[in-house]
Amino acid sequence: MAKMVLLCVLVSFLLMPLASLALTQDFCVADLTCSDFYFHGLAGQGKINPLIKAAVTPAFVGQFPGVNGLGISAARLDIEVGGVVPLHTHPAGSELLFVTQGTVAAGFISSGSNTVYTKTLYAGDIMVFPQGLLHYQYNAGTGAAVGLVAFSSPNPGLQITDFALFANNLPSAVVEKVTFLDDAQVKKLKSVLGGSG
Amino acid sequence: MAKMVLLCVLVSFLLMPLASLALTQDFCVADLTCSDFYFHGLAGQGKINPLIKAAVTPAFVGQFPGVNGLGISAARLDIEVGGVVPLHTHPAGSELLFVTQGTVAAGFISSGSNTVYTKTLYAGDIMVFPQGLLHYQYNAGTGAAVGLVAFSSPNPGLQITDFALFANNLPSAVVEKVTFLDDAQVKKLKSVLGGSG
Amino acid sequence: MAKMVLLCVLVSFLLMPLASLALTQDFCVADLTCSDFYFHGLAGQGKINPLIKAAVTPAFVGQFPGVNGLGISAARLDIEVGGVVPLHTHPAGSELLFVTQGTVAAGFISSGSNTVYTKTLYAGDIMVFPQGLLHYQYNAGTGAAVGLVAFSSPNPGLQITDFALFANNLPSAVVEKVTFLDDAQVKKLKSVLGGSG
Amino acid sequence: MAKMVLLCVLVSFLLMPLASLALTQDFCVADLTCSDFYFHGLAGQGKINPLIKAAVTPAFVGQFPGVNGLGISAARLDIEVGGVVPLHTHPAGSELLFVTQGTVAAGFISSGSNTVYTKTLYAGDIMVFPQGLLHYQYNAGTGAAVGLVAFSSPNPGLQITDFALFANNLPSAVVEKVTFLDDAQVKKLKSVLGGSG
Amino acid sequence: MAKMVLLCVLVSFLLMPLASLALTQDFCVADLTCSDFYFHGLAGQGKINPLIKAAVTPAFVGQFPGVNGLGISAARLDIEVGGVVPLHTHPAGSELLFVTQGTVAAGFISSGSNTVYTKTLYAGDIMVFPQGLLHYQYNAGTGAAVGLVAFSSPNPGLQITDFALFANNLPSAVVEKVTFLDDAQVKKLKSVLGGSG
Amino acid sequence: MAKMVLLCVLVSFLLMPLASLALTQDFCVADLTCSDFYFHGLAGQGKINPLIKAAVTPAFVGQFPGVNGLGISAARLDIEVGGVVPLHTHPAGSELLFVTQGTVAAGFISSGSNTVYTKTLYAGDIMVFPQGLLHYQYNAGTGAAVGLVAFSSPNPGLQITDFALFANNLPSAVVEKVTFLDDAQVKKLKSVLGGSG
Repeated sequence: MAKMVLLCVLVSFLLMPLASLALTQDFCVADLTCSDFYFHGLAGQGKINPLIKAAVTPAFVGQFPGVNGLGISAARLDIEVGGVVPLHTHPAGSELLFVTQGTVAAGFISSGSNTVYTKTLYAGDIMVFPQGLLHYQYNAGTGAAVGLVAFSSPNPGLQITDFALFANNLPSAVVEKVTFLDDAQVKKLKSVLGGSG
Repeated sequence: MAKMVLLCVLVSFLLMPLASLALTQDFCVADLTCSDFYFHGLAGQGKINPLIKAAVTPAFVGQFPGVNGLGISAARLDIEVGGVVPLHTHPAGSELLFVTQGTVAAGFISSGSNTVYTKTLYAGDIMVFPQGLLHYQYNAGTGAAVGLVAFSSPNPGLQITDFALFANNLPSAVVEKVTFLDDAQVKKLKSVLGGSG
Repeated sequence: MAKMVLLCVLVSFLLMPLASLALTQDFCVADLTCSDFYFHGLAGQGKINPLIKAAVTPAFVGQFPGVNGLGISAARLDIEVGGVVPLHTHPAGSELLFVTQGTVAAGFISSGSNTVYTKTLYAGDIMVFPQGLLHYQYNAGTGAAVGLVAFSSPNPGLQITDFALFANNLPSAVVEKVTFLDDAQVKKLKSVLGGSG
Repeated sequence: MAKMVLLCVLVSFLLMPLASLALTQDFCVADLTCSDFYFHGLAGQGKINPLIKAAVTPAFVGQFPGVNGLGISAARLDIEVGGVVPLHTHPAGSELLFVTQGTVAAGFISSGSNTVYTKTLYAGDIMVFPQGLLHYQYNAGTGAAVGLVAFSSPNPGLQITDFALFANNLPSAVVEKVTFLDDAQVKKLKSVLGGSG
Repeated sequence: MAKMVLLCVLVSFLLMPLASLALTQDFCVADLTCSDFYFHGLAGQGKINPLIKAAVTPAFVGQFPGVNGLGISAARLDIEVGGVVPLHTHPAGSELLFVTQGTVAAGFISSGSNTVYTKTLYAGDIMVFPQGLLHYQYNAGTGAAVGLVAFSSPNPGLQITDFALFANNLPSAVVEKVTFLDDAQVKKLKSVLGGSG
Repeated sequence: MAKMVLLCVLVSFLLMPLASLALTQDFCVADLTCSDFYFHGLAGQGKINPLIKAAVTPAFVGQFPGVNGLGISAARLDIEVGGVVPLHTHPAGSELLFVTQGTVAAGFISSGSNTVYTKTLYAGDIMVFPQGLLHYQYNAGTGAAVGLVAFSSPNPGLQITDFALFANNLPSAVVEKVTFLDDAQVKKLKSVLGGSG
């Protein structure tokens, strides 16, 4: 008991010299509160895009500031029957997909040899898509599919090939020259996706 | 049409000079097949440990070779009513938790200032635990809880504080000296967790 | 003079204790000879591919072992009149282009916002293409164009979008589903580029 | 001699074109003076904490700004007879200990297998503690012990297990649930270390 | 056709949910315009320094902001007959040299064993100089030589040994003590290069 | 008590499912024993080189395998009265010097601007030398000086300028061309340091 009393007396001393260590930093965002490390925005279905019949809801550093500097972020995929997450890359991160509902056909293409890696994934399956490689996911089942996705970066980026080619002002002639697509095809998709030129 | 024929004739030439690029490497494991990028082992409930009433099933590089060099890996948590994933760290990676079923109370403690960040998480919520910091999860609901976890490393490591202290041959006297725990407490937990000394 | 003699006597001692430092390593390839740090293979024009009227000659780590571990590699572009280096990415490195002859139209597309950055480059100009983003180069002049390229990785990878889609066994139906391209277009380019399915 | 005169005339030209290189940056703190790269604060004994009979004096980036961006920092340990640096981790760096005076018993515990690595260190000995792993040091001799410590990060962090558990407002019931410690033990140490709840 | 109309109607929906992704970041400089990724400053011969009969024109991040965060930068070497780029290091990057005109003798010295790697390079040849090692280039031909250089860092730094020793206020006595050079030699070069002390 | 018995029974179950985690890896050398993390070789004075009147004793990864993959290593400096650690760089790491005995004059030179940072250090003082920059240490006192050094890399390298220039077969004419040193000076130091050519 006497020992305990002594300890209590000493504790203010104990904390003092270590107080100077309090500036060490485990994460990189100033003024973080608990809620910064928690994110509710993937709890519900994302807003379905009627063209692709799918929703991609990001929890990147822009939406979820707590991941800053931590080398990780997240997203949620909702893919309706017939829906698709079109061919895309993440320039700055690898992707890990957990299928939590439904059936998803997924694939990626290696660089250099252009080898195709495809798999049909059921609830509980996971698949990894290496950084920067083209990949896709589509609903291969008879009901809605849901996936939870993690990335090896707080800001992995997203470049959807169709959007990069057809949803901006890159001239059709240039698109055709660098892709060998036909003029009619390019103009049709530019029209669909809102591109000009 | 003639153009197409010409193209077909030329394609063997086309592929030739680029063949030398085929050695470029997008991932780091030799002789990978498609199945290396896919993992089924998290699809079912893990083997529940009756003491903690929980299961931690890893999909680190040892179990899931496709993640090698990709900066990411995964695990599944199954936590029964009353179950707990005890206080632990991942020395080499940050953790992102998706709760997919049930209710989970989770928390971590910052370094330096020892600030506690806690949150009750429901299905759909996510939380991030910065690299190397002590954290825990336990079932705070009335049914089984399930979490999917991603890490910012293919091999994040796992150091459960109780196992590090009480499940090996670190002498009780040393444990007591470096933790200020009482001798009876240390010996009791060494006995429970199979430690010696 | 006496001092010099003394120094000469002492030099064998001098070299001895530092000999143990000789194992420190500035580069990562065993048994390198001088020739490993030198590469002649970009000195001449590459083998022109008649379809694209261009040649891409790599000096990645596979061809040029001296760059191993040094965070850099190289390539040479030869683009004939009318030639093109089709739309592509380097999943693992940024690219820096020096135009050394002719006129090159080049561009890249940012992720997220799909903003297009294009420029006509003349001999002496340089342009940088950020890691993982879609980009292209084509001859925009009246004579042959030559470019020297450096990458921020010894093994940056190369994924040519057309090859990834049309030069392998990825089924046409899948290509169409994930790109919204028409069936005729996909089959035409698969035929041109040697793809099946 | 004439050559020297010529050289002197030319030197103002010499310095001019290279002046534009002066913006290259070898370190990352603005307005550094010489004193930023020098630190006197480890020269004397740190303020001994009477509970642990030891002092940990940091020279992290907060105290020693010159290390910013350089991947290294330092600290000094003073451990009186009977003193201890309690069980702790550095979430963001490996530690290298030089014992400069006295006798220190040190150890760390690996992750996964919980293997214990311990050693008695005498003046002149060094030991390394891998990033993120639990470790400790205590005086094992008959006089004061001193250690100089380097870290593989300018800001390695410090998480003392006892402080993380007992010196904050983490509720006793939660501590007990996630550590299997007894309620009396937790409350005793919370009292000693100033924790609440 | 009806399908196309439908697509056009839907496209505004399509772009909406993905708009939130637009904050993802592929490069690190705010308010970049196209011109930031393009640099004209290496197109012409640099300003020849008459002492070394050579010019080193940098396109580091200070001159070429588009390379920020991309792990790469550039420079141009112009070396007249008899000219030399004196012995130097880049503390923060490896160097890749493309000789585009003339004949260049180049070499570097490994650390530890002090092994010399030298090569005579002709137009079209490339050579790599590992990070931080001493190296040089000089004109070994009968006409002007030009080299294009890439670095594995946006800010590789440049430390010319002669300038570090003789072009500042480092006292002659210190220079002599740490290099074993003779006093007359040190004073002569300090005079040439504008140093004091 | 009954609870304890139950716990003991259950513990074999407890350890089972976590056994699969044992392959996680905290360090990178196979078959490490405790002694790999401990090093005795810096405990005594190094072998003094009579020319420089100093000894540099490394504990890099080659001598001290436990630091592999941990981002840190060490060395010991012994500098007799009048002794010097000549001008040198570490191409792959920053250096942190603890002076533990005597008086040391130390300095480094920044890149680009060639600014000199010098300091007289007494026992207990520390100084940091940024990666790749030229620096030196010499005894500035009346008794032997000792320093303990840490590096931000397991293999920082060491390039002593004099050795790189004069202790190998780099021809005198090349040395003179790239350093502007006089022929007599170069030949004198080549003779002293054992170089040829």
